[in-house]
Amino acid sequence: MSTLPILFSFFDSESIVNHIHQALNYEIGKLQIHEFPDQEIVVKIESDLTMRDIIFVASLDHPNAKILPLIFAAETVRNLGAKKIMLIAPYLAYMRQDKIFEAGQGIIAQYFAKMLSQYFDSLITIDPHLHRIHSLKEIFSIPTAVLHATNAIASWISHQVVNPVLIGPDMESAQWVHEVAKKTNSPYVILNKIRKNDYTVEISENNIEHYRACIPILIDDIISSGMTLIETTKHLESLKMKKPICIGVHAIFSGDAYPHLMNAYVSKVVTCNTIQHPSNAIDISDEIIQFLKKEQTQLG
Amino acid sequence: MSTLPILFSFFDSESIVNHIHQALNYEIGKLQIHEFPDQEIVVKIESDLTMRDIIFVASLDHPNAKILPLIFAAETVRNLGAKKIMLIAPYLAYMRQDKIFEAGQGIIAQYFAKMLSQYFDSLITIDPHLHRIHSLKEIFSIPTAVLHATNAIASWISHQVVNPVLIGPDMESAQWVHEVAKKTNSPYVILNKIRKNDYTVEISENNIEHYRACIPILIDDIISSGMTLIETTKHLESLKMKKPICIGVHAIFSGDAYPHLMNAYVSKVVTCNTIQHPSNAIDISDEIIQFLKKEQTQLG
Repeated sequence: MSTLPILFSFFDSESIVNHIHQALNYEIGKLQIHEFPDQEIVVKIESDLTMRDIIFVASLDHPNAKILPLIFAAETVRNLGAKKIMLIAPYLAYMRQDKIFEAGQGIIAQYFAKMLSQYFDSLITIDPHLHRIHSLKEIFSIPTAVLHATNAIASWISHQVVNPVLIGPDMESAQWVHEVAKKTNSPYVILNKIRKNDYTVEISENNIEHYRACIPILIDDIISSGMTLIETTKHLESLKMKKPICIGVHAIFSGDAYPHLMNAYVSKVVTCNTIQHPSNAIDISDEIIQFLKKEQTQLG
Repeated sequence: MSTLPILFSFFDSESIVNHIHQALNYEIGKLQIHEFPDQEIVVKIESDLTMRDIIFVASLDHPNAKILPLIFAAETVRNLGAKKIMLIAPYLAYMRQDKIFEAGQGIIAQYFAKMLSQYFDSLITIDPHLHRIHSLKEIFSIPTAVLHATNAIASWISHQVVNPVLIGPDMESAQWVHEVAKKTNSPYVILNKIRKNDYTVEISENNIEHYRACIPILIDDIISSGMTLIETTKHLESLKMKKPICIGVHAIFSGDAYPHLMNAYVSKVVTCNTIQHPSNAIDISDEIIQFLKKEQTQLG
């Protein structure tokens, strides 16, 4: 009998699950979520889980309706005799709610982490939005590991772009942009963003026009409304820079954000497959595979 | 400073909250749920909650997308200094998932109750679907109270219908129908239902044609697909009974169930306001008010 973990795919995470399966020979478990006419659901698992380690791969964008199915699946798996359950959340939601922004609010990132910690034994995620919370250890009570998309992004740039200049649209993006610049040996510039509300941002002045000969590559962690990138492209256009390539780690694209960004002053929009989306072109599975290879015994 | 509880209304529970407020003078708290473009939410509370008892009124039909907002609100309320949080769920979801129906499933009712028990200090609900689970104590680890819609339903029938015969469409409905028959001093009949799948049911033969002169009143706890009631009305039509009034405690009405039922052999569809719906005509607030008046100190 195999003692390798069994993988379960949730919410369009098949591509990552299949890559892990191919690389590490982990079995892919069979799980059905049946929805009744009243929209309540029941989970059914057709694999023998007795004393097996379980890995759920579930991207947590648009999280509200996903959480009960995920919790019910975790509880069902545990009742069927599983040993440990690891959650691989390529995108971890609610990390931007990392402080009390107004009186009367709570710190939602904390509550979300506390809840996940009750149902899973460990968590792996890709580039969570760590800003005021500096480590997942501050909010999770289970072992966690943060993996990065920077290798995969750098590799894509190296293969696809000649003479790039990397641009971070705001200070929060500096961590990724700096890493990718190092790995690709490219110049980079970090801009200042002033967020006016959920949908409006403004970009401050800077010196990127020195790089007019280069192909600008905008890099951000989360593309949600897309306004940060769109404002940045307007700024580049006003400086007579070339049309930029926009790279996002997490392709949230709320509402019409994707067509809006495609119609902006951009040559291409490229994202990682942490959230399934037509713009996905950079596969981060290898980061997860390398981690599972080396670390699983320790973390599990 | 008042020491009465503060009421918060969730998911269209205003009518019940307003009735409690009017009867008991409990303050209605101000709570906003803001949704960001990525569909993540944040809760903001504008009332001073320090050392106050809190009551959430939240009907849990179509529960999957409601649970995170409810949990985040409970956590926020607790962080703002609230003493105890009571959940009044006029409709309690997932109670029909009360056993392992097929190998590989779990008992979802248990998981749901365990989860709610982690965030609330007590629970009140109206006529939960107690079938194989005989008491909420079996699945909740917090104090619970089950209130009944039978008084309110009996009162409505007494005021609106002359010469009724009450009809329970299946054995599970017997508990309600029997109670309402006693309170209204009416004859009643319980039918046998054979459920073939989520949408198909069959009614067995019986002797209700003895009541051809009466107005048939079908009573069920949950109207979801409506198929149970529709099949029963066909049966009544075939026996040349008068067009029945359909009364449901919980107006789930999945998909087109409501227009389908209205177009069936029925004279009227009437429900309690445990779930807000155009068919609501029976107010169950008084049951809650009487309970809070008598029992809150004990339960809280």
